[in-house]
Amino acid sequence: MSEQTVVVAADALKSFCKDLFMTEGVPEEEARITADVLVEANLTGVDSHGVSRVAAYMERLRQGGNRRIAKVDVLTDFPAGATWDANGSLGQVVAWRAMRAAMEKARKVGVGFVAVRHNNHTGANAYYVRMAAEGGLIGLVAGNGPPMVAPWGSASPFFSTNPLSFGVPAGEEKPIVIDMATSVSARGKIILAAKNGKKIPLGWAVDEEGNDTEDPHAALKGVLLPFGGHKGYAIALMVEVLAGLLSGAGYGPTMNEHYNRHDVPINSGNLFAAIDVSRFISPEEFRSEADGMIRSIRAGRVRPGFKEILLPGEIESRTRDLRLREGIPLPEVVFRELEDEGRRCGVKSPEPCIQA
Amino acid sequence: MSEQTVVVAADALKSFCKDLFMTEGVPEEEARITADVLVEANLTGVDSHGVSRVAAYMERLRQGGNRRIAKVDVLTDFPAGATWDANGSLGQVVAWRAMRAAMEKARKVGVGFVAVRHNNHTGANAYYVRMAAEGGLIGLVAGNGPPMVAPWGSASPFFSTNPLSFGVPAGEEKPIVIDMATSVSARGKIILAAKNGKKIPLGWAVDEEGNDTEDPHAALKGVLLPFGGHKGYAIALMVEVLAGLLSGAGYGPTMNEHYNRHDVPINSGNLFAAIDVSRFISPEEFRSEADGMIRSIRAGRVRPGFKEILLPGEIESRTRDLRLREGIPLPEVVFRELEDEGRRCGVKSPEPCIQA
Repeated sequence: MSEQTVVVAADALKSFCKDLFMTEGVPEEEARITADVLVEANLTGVDSHGVSRVAAYMERLRQGGNRRIAKVDVLTDFPAGATWDANGSLGQVVAWRAMRAAMEKARKVGVGFVAVRHNNHTGANAYYVRMAAEGGLIGLVAGNGPPMVAPWGSASPFFSTNPLSFGVPAGEEKPIVIDMATSVSARGKIILAAKNGKKIPLGWAVDEEGNDTEDPHAALKGVLLPFGGHKGYAIALMVEVLAGLLSGAGYGPTMNEHYNRHDVPINSGNLFAAIDVSRFISPEEFRSEADGMIRSIRAGRVRPGFKEILLPGEIESRTRDLRLREGIPLPEVVFRELEDEGRRCGVKSPEPCIQA
Repeated sequence: MSEQTVVVAADALKSFCKDLFMTEGVPEEEARITADVLVEANLTGVDSHGVSRVAAYMERLRQGGNRRIAKVDVLTDFPAGATWDANGSLGQVVAWRAMRAAMEKARKVGVGFVAVRHNNHTGANAYYVRMAAEGGLIGLVAGNGPPMVAPWGSASPFFSTNPLSFGVPAGEEKPIVIDMATSVSARGKIILAAKNGKKIPLGWAVDEEGNDTEDPHAALKGVLLPFGGHKGYAIALMVEVLAGLLSGAGYGPTMNEHYNRHDVPINSGNLFAAIDVSRFISPEEFRSEADGMIRSIRAGRVRPGFKEILLPGEIESRTRDLRLREGIPLPEVVFRELEDEGRRCGVKSPEPCIQA
């Protein structure tokens, strides 16, 4: 651990964040879900989607960008799906409920698709597909948002990082959990390179004119690129359709800013889908085949330059085991920010763990 | 047109292929579907999946790899889905029926997922997602098959080119049609480079030891790579789960060869999925938003080195318009192969168009 990190136990951190949200009028159950999704991101090593976002969430609750008490309107409901209006509620609360609803529908008719419009940031969507996988279902989540990624051949922002997430139950093996942005890189990594005076790899972004660039400053004025060239563009577009068009949320350029404006909902869209494998095939056979597939992939010949062949979600799962045991290392600046919020709201900040 | 091509009208080619299949005992309706899927691939410029495959299909019908008369067993059927055993029937016939069944289910309950095991090559899956889109539904098709693509970090073949296809209805605009292999390149392109003594780009494949290579011969002994690095690996894996695990077909290494053995079914798996947008949102709104999205993407600033910003399926749609008017240019070697089959089976080969 570097000197600039403060290590905090996951449970203490969850409890602290829940209490913080409650001081802004969020009901306990909703505060608990939001805190759980945020801290689970830290537990799995996805710190970009963890408690470093709490201050912004608090600000959004204060300024009205996030509704304090979730209000979901069911616009339409049918055996295999539904469309919900999230009315700018906390994205995590709506996402949790939507995945639960999708799972219930899947258990009844085989597949459940819940499309959500007028939503806010849902955090790391791995959480929701893991819910499905832990319930023995395949989960799929798609999300859109404000534009920052260009279609293939374009220099104009259109897609958000349009994440696609996919969870698969296994038997003795841990679930497969895919959770990926459909851009090559996160905007945060380019901001970091700019701060540190470093170059960025070619292919991450283009400048305002659409030229390839290694200059992070030019890239920040320009636009991110989809991963995998024209094929990644197609995947980003598929996510846009499933998350934005099916829900009626709209497409990228119709969304509101998330990072610079805290007073309006993003109005983003999501799809939460669940597939009950036990309707298609015996669940024992599915789990055993999933184990076989995972082990067969892992048993391949490792390429030079790689230490092992990993399944999606495997590193995150190992990090979670480690951080459950040893605590979550937070950058000191993030811990201080949380302390400040705690002081402001009269919530005692979590005790750092004693480190060896 | 080069001198080595023979131009044939689409209708004549469809009729000829249908008659050929019928001489091997395929019922007329099934022969018509198979011919239609193959020739539609040529019409849209996807010649790799067109009539150049007819000779192999005929051989598979003769040797028993493809069943003459389709036999589908419904293993399980429920409101939002079904699992079918294709029993090694012609892949196109099963695929056409499965997408029809998925669409019917979607119209009843909102979403329909038909999983198929023990299937054969289904041709270009764009055909089936276009069926859905033309019916006002979103279509999704996933397929697996014999191993030739490595997981990320592995030098061992595991996935087939695991195609993912996705069709979206629009209003005044043409449907969006995504149909992509999840490998960087097709194996056929590497075979071609080897024949022509050309290098292949780094990143297409690795040699037997897993080292990057530009040598097509080393690549052919080695293994193809997924597109887009570890993210493309995740997409290939998602396709494997949806096509292979959900249907009970199994995963890559459990499949039979397609190209070198004509006497056994591939036993590959597919998912045919349809989403009835009209259950989620008013279809007029969906179509108008889809048009808006397409036009907004197209109106972006074009990057240097690109002529225009394209939607997936746009080039194929233009090629189809052209080839419907002017005929399908077939390499002479493919045309001769068809003539030979025709002679062998007593079917008159299609008259070449008169060229200017």
